Amino acid sequence: MNPELHLENIRSVLIRLEETIIFGLIERAQFKQNPIVYRRAAIDGLDEALVDYLLHETERIHARMRRYTSPDEHPFFQDLPAPVLPALRYDDNPLQPNRLNLNSRIRAEYETFVIPRVCDAGDDGQYGSSAVSDVSNLQALSKRIHYGKFVAESKYRRRPAEFEELAHAADRDGLLAAVTDLEVERQVVERVGRKAETYGLSLVEQGASPKIDPGAVVQLYAEWIIPLNKHVQVEYLLERVPRGG
Amino acid sequence: MNPELHLENIRSVLIRLEETIIFGLIERAQFKQNPIVYRRAAIDGLDEALVDYLLHETERIHARMRRYTSPDEHPFFQDLPAPVLPALRYDDNPLQPNRLNLNSRIRAEYETFVIPRVCDAGDDGQYGSSAVSDVSNLQALSKRIHYGKFVAESKYRRRPAEFEELAHAADRDGLLAAVTDLEVERQVVERVGRKAETYGLSLVEQGASPKIDPGAVVQLYAEWIIPLNKHVQVEYLLERVPRGG
Repeated sequence: MNPELHLENIRSVLIRLEETIIFGLIERAQFKQNPIVYRRAAIDGLDEALVDYLLHETERIHARMRRYTSPDEHPFFQDLPAPVLPALRYDDNPLQPNRLNLNSRIRAEYETFVIPRVCDAGDDGQYGSSAVSDVSNLQALSKRIHYGKFVAESKYRRRPAEFEELAHAADRDGLLAAVTDLEVERQVVERVGRKAETYGLSLVEQGASPKIDPGAVVQLYAEWIIPLNKHVQVEYLLERVPRGG
Repeated sequence: MNPELHLENIRSVLIRLEETIIFGLIERAQFKQNPIVYRRAAIDGLDEALVDYLLHETERIHARMRRYTSPDEHPFFQDLPAPVLPALRYDDNPLQPNRLNLNSRIRAEYETFVIPRVCDAGDDGQYGSSAVSDVSNLQALSKRIHYGKFVAESKYRRRPAEFEELAHAADRDGLLAAVTDLEVERQVVERVGRKAETYGLSLVEQGASPKIDPGAVVQLYAEWIIPLNKHVQVEYLLERVPRGG
């Protein structure tokens, strides 16, 4: 099997992304919610919301560097320029071709679900810094959530008959049950809580003042990241499995 | 005194930047050195080195978001567009106007001093990811090093006569001695080593494989970041102090 589909390798990518996500949230928590950065045309000189403007410009650059030719990357915007770098790897894309992209939902819920749990309410004027941090976080969260495609492909290849039957019947509940492993989820949530606490504590010991609540990070994983990741798995499998006759 | 000049506040900014820097280095250490990303015109379709191209484009966007109107931010490129966001804070810039900018040196030594200590030699084809990580690291290191301006301004205001005498005599060695606090340096290096070890260890315990050597992070602070920060302090004071007659 393609090494990118070994569960051990997938697991190590997801564990590394936990650090990126937790530190990104700790970074964002330095600033208040600053709701103005999420509102269209709220800032003079910009039609888009500041976060969307920055995300869009960042994606234009990254597209030229062929970021979105990688099967584990998903853009938030579709009107991106062609790569200037020659395609390099990814000839051995282990996924089935698919167009599944949850980013518009991720962007919306980042604003309504994530930010209120991570940041204090209010406006501290730190719009640029907040938006820069938001762009990194959105990219990391999108990667984490869409990694469900690799998880699903890996599970499918080990038990094709079971997934084909469920997909042919368009049985979303059955697919969700089949991709769910509650013991693994428990481990992820426990580990993430421990990390958020460790990193938060070591910041406190060292004289900085982290404002992030480990409970908020746990909730984010348990109620948002993991469910969305499983949603990606189910939708990918519905699209991936050859239609039965 | 302007709160940005209270040593306690400066210290907490610098401590927070340690996390950003250490995690940025751990992120970069996932990839090999990939020397091609630092070489001009080494990649088809680009005249600049890939890192410089990405840094330049990123700075163009951030300039529009008025990042470089902030006294604690210094661009690597000078041909940047004007801000589209209205100026907001920074009316109370606590620094004396100055043009001190060490970024060309920071960029060069990042490639020759930092990368060989952080990454395994070789080329793994992960050019885009390496360059994205480099841009974040260069920005964080530049901020950390140039924060010496705030440190120097704070020290000057507490002991103006002493610094004026040394600056009038253009006594760089004397200024360097006057801004040096070996006990504080020892604490910084010790804390950074402990953090690099803690974060590295917790990655190992949790199943990821960090490749960063805490000794490399210690060396980076002791032999590069702290000396450059003090160099900024000395040069800032030479420029800042009113010339004697």
